[in-house]
Amino acid sequence: MKSETKRLKVVIIGGGFGGLSAAKKLSGSPVDVTLIDRKNHHTFQPLLYQVATSVLSAGEIASPLRHILRRAPNVEVILGEVADFDADARRVLLKDGSELSYDYLIVAAGARHSYFGHDEWEHDAPGLKTIEDALEIRRRVLLAFERAEREAYLTGQHGPLNFAIIGGGPTGIELSGAIAEIARQVLASDFKAIDATKARVMLFEGLPRVLSVYPEDISRKAEEQLKELGVEVRTNSMVTAVESNRIKVGDEWIRTSVTLWATGVAASPLGKKLAAQAQDVQVDRAGRVPIAPDLSLSGRREIFVIGDLASLKDANGKPVPGLGAAALQEGRTAASNILRDLHGEPRLPFRYFDKGSMATIGRKRAVAQIGRLHVSGYLAWLMWLFVHLILLVGFRNRLMVMREWVWAFFTRERSARLITGETDTPT
Amino acid sequence: MKSETKRLKVVIIGGGFGGLSAAKKLSGSPVDVTLIDRKNHHTFQPLLYQVATSVLSAGEIASPLRHILRRAPNVEVILGEVADFDADARRVLLKDGSELSYDYLIVAAGARHSYFGHDEWEHDAPGLKTIEDALEIRRRVLLAFERAEREAYLTGQHGPLNFAIIGGGPTGIELSGAIAEIARQVLASDFKAIDATKARVMLFEGLPRVLSVYPEDISRKAEEQLKELGVEVRTNSMVTAVESNRIKVGDEWIRTSVTLWATGVAASPLGKKLAAQAQDVQVDRAGRVPIAPDLSLSGRREIFVIGDLASLKDANGKPVPGLGAAALQEGRTAASNILRDLHGEPRLPFRYFDKGSMATIGRKRAVAQIGRLHVSGYLAWLMWLFVHLILLVGFRNRLMVMREWVWAFFTRERSARLITGETDTPT
Repeated sequence: MKSETKRLKVVIIGGGFGGLSAAKKLSGSPVDVTLIDRKNHHTFQPLLYQVATSVLSAGEIASPLRHILRRAPNVEVILGEVADFDADARRVLLKDGSELSYDYLIVAAGARHSYFGHDEWEHDAPGLKTIEDALEIRRRVLLAFERAEREAYLTGQHGPLNFAIIGGGPTGIELSGAIAEIARQVLASDFKAIDATKARVMLFEGLPRVLSVYPEDISRKAEEQLKELGVEVRTNSMVTAVESNRIKVGDEWIRTSVTLWATGVAASPLGKKLAAQAQDVQVDRAGRVPIAPDLSLSGRREIFVIGDLASLKDANGKPVPGLGAAALQEGRTAASNILRDLHGEPRLPFRYFDKGSMATIGRKRAVAQIGRLHVSGYLAWLMWLFVHLILLVGFRNRLMVMREWVWAFFTRERSARLITGETDTPT
Repeated sequence: MKSETKRLKVVIIGGGFGGLSAAKKLSGSPVDVTLIDRKNHHTFQPLLYQVATSVLSAGEIASPLRHILRRAPNVEVILGEVADFDADARRVLLKDGSELSYDYLIVAAGARHSYFGHDEWEHDAPGLKTIEDALEIRRRVLLAFERAEREAYLTGQHGPLNFAIIGGGPTGIELSGAIAEIARQVLASDFKAIDATKARVMLFEGLPRVLSVYPEDISRKAEEQLKELGVEVRTNSMVTAVESNRIKVGDEWIRTSVTLWATGVAASPLGKKLAAQAQDVQVDRAGRVPIAPDLSLSGRREIFVIGDLASLKDANGKPVPGLGAAALQEGRTAASNILRDLHGEPRLPFRYFDKGSMATIGRKRAVAQIGRLHVSGYLAWLMWLFVHLILLVGFRNRLMVMREWVWAFFTRERSARLITGETDTPT
């Protein structure tokens, strides 16, 4: 890619919803765009829990970034990891020592889960942010059943088959609903020595209700539907310790086979590095970077920060939520503001358009809030299905996912029930 | 599973073609069967190279063993690793210290590649036997292109993009054909800074021709078709050293981006453990156990050894080949001989029914030998397609694979082009 005379260089860090939407918006514009990511693929995070619970396989919710952007002639995709910035020299420094210069920089490096100062818990309670996380969770869940089966077959009895999910937000709800369902409806007929339907699925939430950012009636509906699936919902339950086969909730120790972490936000460490390059900017407790209404960094008009890495109140004074939809809209606005600079037009402030939010709870159950409309049950589930099929990146994947869902719906069979990696000879 | 009075116990080790066919044959018989494997799934090995080259995803060529056997009421599947045997006490010892007793034992533990005394080469030249191997090879192949793209983008040039495949048997041919095809037809449009079609694919074979166990005209046809795809076929070329970025062929060092190993057979180490329990039995150079015509171990009528772990001449005096088809037939014979014992009938010697063999070379190219019939090109490819769809385990996977193939055939698109695991920040 040779740039013509004086084409501006835009570097985008991160190929999630934010980075990808910025790159698409800039496709065909008179700028040279470089998108850097540590992975070669975009991951459709809202469906990760379905990979973790064996409904979908990895290829069905992820697409190679360079394939998604193959028809964007001015966008180059580079696999690489960013180490730091030199904002004065307008350079991005990569881990391997090489450098990239930019005229504009869009940082969309995202977030992981926060363990609230207990990073040592991650080993025993993995979170769900990447394809690798999803495959690891799948491995642990299926191995727990395999271990119990083996123990029961060899000794006539087996230890408790307890799944603990920590955090009652959308991810926690989706994971616990899906695990309860897989145990009762899918695995039950495959295992002979154990009764897979006896598996306990426990959802722990520190606050008084699940889905605490939703209205109360939605939380109540979600909890009802979880209970219908056999999930034990424990609100006001703060987890205070995590070990390999047990967790401490308040003062009570509870034995677990698998513990999953679905709470807390820790923005990418690149947030701090960015703040250090700006004027009077400090990251918030979650490591997010406060930004101006035009999404740029204070004192660095050429640097935009978007998505889960950014902290921002929109025009109405409400904090923009850490959702894929918000990141996507921010990506478009950041790209637009670059183009407006090029055309000598004033920048626009970011306006978040809330399309509503939803969470699914197993097959045929969900909750949804769209403005003042609150929906739950089968109808919400159909809405969820429809919206996520529309949002899925790439025509191919959409067909693949739809087909898997139709199959799973009618047969209750899961296609992706493979344990890969070490099978960890059961103990 | 409570056994009724005096039901005999059959333990099967290994869930490949041999072990699985024995388990199926014994399903519904008045014996209690336990199938032990280190993995929870059966892998359809003939299509592993398609996972390695991004055509299929793991779930499409592998099925959970307990799902395949869910309707076999007397067959229990256990995840576990066998450490040793105590043939006098008729016990199998597992790695974790537990034991399983048996009345009959069928050992179908398979083989891996042999590095001819250079096991240290495996790290730089992985073989292709498991799903994990296939995903690792995919990762290396795709990362090689990503690295070259990155280097070219940052510096304007890149090192050689050389793929070396060592071994001109069916696996070597299939891998090299598929890699040449993916470079020229699939990746070319995704990469912008490099010309993916310039990738070199080199196939090294120590003997004078590829597919040396096939008739000469088949070898010639295979070589022709490989060359049409741009593969450099180097026969009479013995690889004498393997390092991370180069290999030595004869006296010549050749730079490589990725080296793959597709030759040699090393039977499971369980072979030696078995031989130690038998009378006057020594494993052959590949670690295989010689067995009697009824497939039992000398002096241990209750132990059968089948598949790639066994060494056997069939009734015509010809060695039984290390093919899935042979293992499958042996599994049935071993199971039949157990049932004949139960009914007081004499055991039958194993007769190998040669259904022919075939290897595919990319899209629309293949070679096949069925008795005296030799076929190559498009017709052979259609035959290959048909036979492998029939053989694939499980109705579901067959549909899935057919659909992927139809899609890939018409669009030349590959769905499974994800790099999972460490993306190994490019250097």
